[in-house]
Amino acid sequence: MTAPAMGPADHAGVRRNNLSLVLRLLGTEGTRSRAAVAAETGLNKATVSSLVNDLIDRGLVRELGFDGRRRLGRPATLIELDGRQVASIGLEINVDLVTVVGMDLGGRILFERGRAIDVARRPLIRTLATVTAMASEAYEEVRQISTTVAGITVAVPGLVDATTRTVAIAPNLGLHDLELGERLAEALGGDLRVTIDNDANLAALAEYRIGQCAGTQNLIYITGQTGVGGGLIVDGRLARGASGFSGEIGHMRVGPADRICGCGRRGCWEALVGLQQLMRDAVPDLAARLGAQKDKGPEAKVAAIVARAEARDPVALKALDRHAGWLGTGLSILVNIFNPQVVILGGFFREIGPWVVPTAERIMHEQTMAPDAGGCRIVTSNLGYSAAAMGAAIHAAERVFDDPTTVPIADATPLH
Amino acid sequence: MTAPAMGPADHAGVRRNNLSLVLRLLGTEGTRSRAAVAAETGLNKATVSSLVNDLIDRGLVRELGFDGRRRLGRPATLIELDGRQVASIGLEINVDLVTVVGMDLGGRILFERGRAIDVARRPLIRTLATVTAMASEAYEEVRQISTTVAGITVAVPGLVDATTRTVAIAPNLGLHDLELGERLAEALGGDLRVTIDNDANLAALAEYRIGQCAGTQNLIYITGQTGVGGGLIVDGRLARGASGFSGEIGHMRVGPADRICGCGRRGCWEALVGLQQLMRDAVPDLAARLGAQKDKGPEAKVAAIVARAEARDPVALKALDRHAGWLGTGLSILVNIFNPQVVILGGFFREIGPWVVPTAERIMHEQTMAPDAGGCRIVTSNLGYSAAAMGAAIHAAERVFDDPTTVPIADATPLH
Repeated sequence: MTAPAMGPADHAGVRRNNLSLVLRLLGTEGTRSRAAVAAETGLNKATVSSLVNDLIDRGLVRELGFDGRRRLGRPATLIELDGRQVASIGLEINVDLVTVVGMDLGGRILFERGRAIDVARRPLIRTLATVTAMASEAYEEVRQISTTVAGITVAVPGLVDATTRTVAIAPNLGLHDLELGERLAEALGGDLRVTIDNDANLAALAEYRIGQCAGTQNLIYITGQTGVGGGLIVDGRLARGASGFSGEIGHMRVGPADRICGCGRRGCWEALVGLQQLMRDAVPDLAARLGAQKDKGPEAKVAAIVARAEARDPVALKALDRHAGWLGTGLSILVNIFNPQVVILGGFFREIGPWVVPTAERIMHEQTMAPDAGGCRIVTSNLGYSAAAMGAAIHAAERVFDDPTTVPIADATPLH
Repeated sequence: MTAPAMGPADHAGVRRNNLSLVLRLLGTEGTRSRAAVAAETGLNKATVSSLVNDLIDRGLVRELGFDGRRRLGRPATLIELDGRQVASIGLEINVDLVTVVGMDLGGRILFERGRAIDVARRPLIRTLATVTAMASEAYEEVRQISTTVAGITVAVPGLVDATTRTVAIAPNLGLHDLELGERLAEALGGDLRVTIDNDANLAALAEYRIGQCAGTQNLIYITGQTGVGGGLIVDGRLARGASGFSGEIGHMRVGPADRICGCGRRGCWEALVGLQQLMRDAVPDLAARLGAQKDKGPEAKVAAIVARAEARDPVALKALDRHAGWLGTGLSILVNIFNPQVVILGGFFREIGPWVVPTAERIMHEQTMAPDAGGCRIVTSNLGYSAAAMGAAIHAAERVFDDPTTVPIADATPLH
């Protein structure tokens, strides 16, 4: 194997990679001097200075005052990521809820909106119209604040082929082989770069970057919506699998054969710990009516269960206890396979957490091979039902970290 | 956050990292010019030249002839990894077999030996004596060939804490809380740096580096010994989990409750697809006798099953078919979770492959959510029962790639 002689294209590629390296370092590690950036990246100081000046010109980095802690030599100017110039949008389409979030490059939420709709029973064209309107509104809002919008990522609960921007199968939404990315890009009139990805993957990314366990190198996020999906952070990176189809944890066999899953199989985890099943078990008298309220998001349904549990209704308490057992059994399989530091329960699991987490944790410990479950604990997410949309916004912003030259050099003085 | 001023220690650290970067590039990408190394690492040419000279002085890199394909400027000298100076040793302790492998840095096998012993029923002290003798023999052999021996890694089927070099639990070996690393290091008299790790992890590493699917970014390796463990390569990296306890896939519930596992639970995958169970099902009249032959490795046991299958014995064929079904069901769980490109079946699965792989692949496809099982196929390993030992040798050599300065600068001219 021999390498070709280096041409101008290679040099541009090296510079782009180095800009990315510096911007990422400032994004994840925070404020530091140019000399520190040079030391941590292994690049020489002159190169770092040139790269930092370029990033300042693009409005992605700003200078702060001097580093007061430095004792020797000239005082060093500190630099940090300037997240304000660039925004991105994340949108989640779930069974009964569409959520949109606008976020700046520094992770600050600029805009957030949720709308309860019944995606599975609505004509696709109406859903797309709603999604387009919500995306457009978010776009208009964030453009008031940031000069560049990096793009929009759409989170979908199902198997997503990110390369072709196609939803292969999203059973709970009733979608398959839908070129969602293409359709949305058209509807948005080319204003926004559109990518799509799996909801659990994106929620896991949000937890890893901005959640209560941010930075935890091995974590599993479990979605708590109609379906149950998993997002995996392995050694600090989102594990998408070979074609982006990882995390289909809802159909592990966990329970007895009398529980028939929507997928046709028996004993699937989703059929035991999903919200539909919990409603049927915990509030059997309300389940049909609540299930029919397609204009309400999951909050209203969970609230009914929580109200009964708080009133110490024996049926609800027994159902929650059994639910906790299935939850712990399923988690033990995942913990045996992955050995994560933490399992983060998303969506409706947060509301029912007080009734299920202690039991689930005990069962998980009992059924995990590693002593003390390998140190794994269970927490409920505090990103709420917006976790996937937040992760989608973070994902859409990745393009700027990958290639800072996608943000143009500003004509005028940057905002201050 | 501010960075401290750079001291000499930081500079040494940067240089060490850069030496590592260059050596790894040559190890994984092969022969190239210094200019190509500079382009691919982003380091400047003067730095690369100095780093390469250092690696040549340590006998880790050698110069080849000129790059004939280069048309412009001075002809560039090509450089490549020189694996001959450094060897490492991998050793696997399994239930009925201890295997040792000596390998050079380029992946060439220098030495290989296996010995059938009954680890679970032997006094620990005798097992350690055997292991020590085998490791010493390998050490003496590889020292004849390579000037530096980077260390020995020992593969164990169980939960291994690599940091403390302790076997937390290895149920099939009857070991727990054993400071194996410490004990072996003492027994070897300090000659060799000893590390320990899980057998499935190390076998997966071997497959990723030197197996038939080398370089496949997402793969699962399944051990086929008494127990069933998994090694996971996720996005090109071995996924060990938070404390090295990942891959405990043997105790997923896959089958009916009438199959009681050694762990006390019901329906565990290991109790369905492990070699013990297959012997009981496929050659029920021989199972007791074969199981008692503790001086024989797994080959003899599998050979009895294969002989019956080849003779079209209906009991054996039926057992293999059922085995294939459980195999496919368990794999579908893993494929749903990981979305790998390939599942590699190790150990005894190779011998029974012709009877089980087609059915297992069909069942896996049926039970995986992703269309066409996300493109995943099943292959049997061609690294045989030495896969974990080979992976252990590769792992022991990692230290040199991480820090090439662990190999001393040679006094005399390097070997040619």
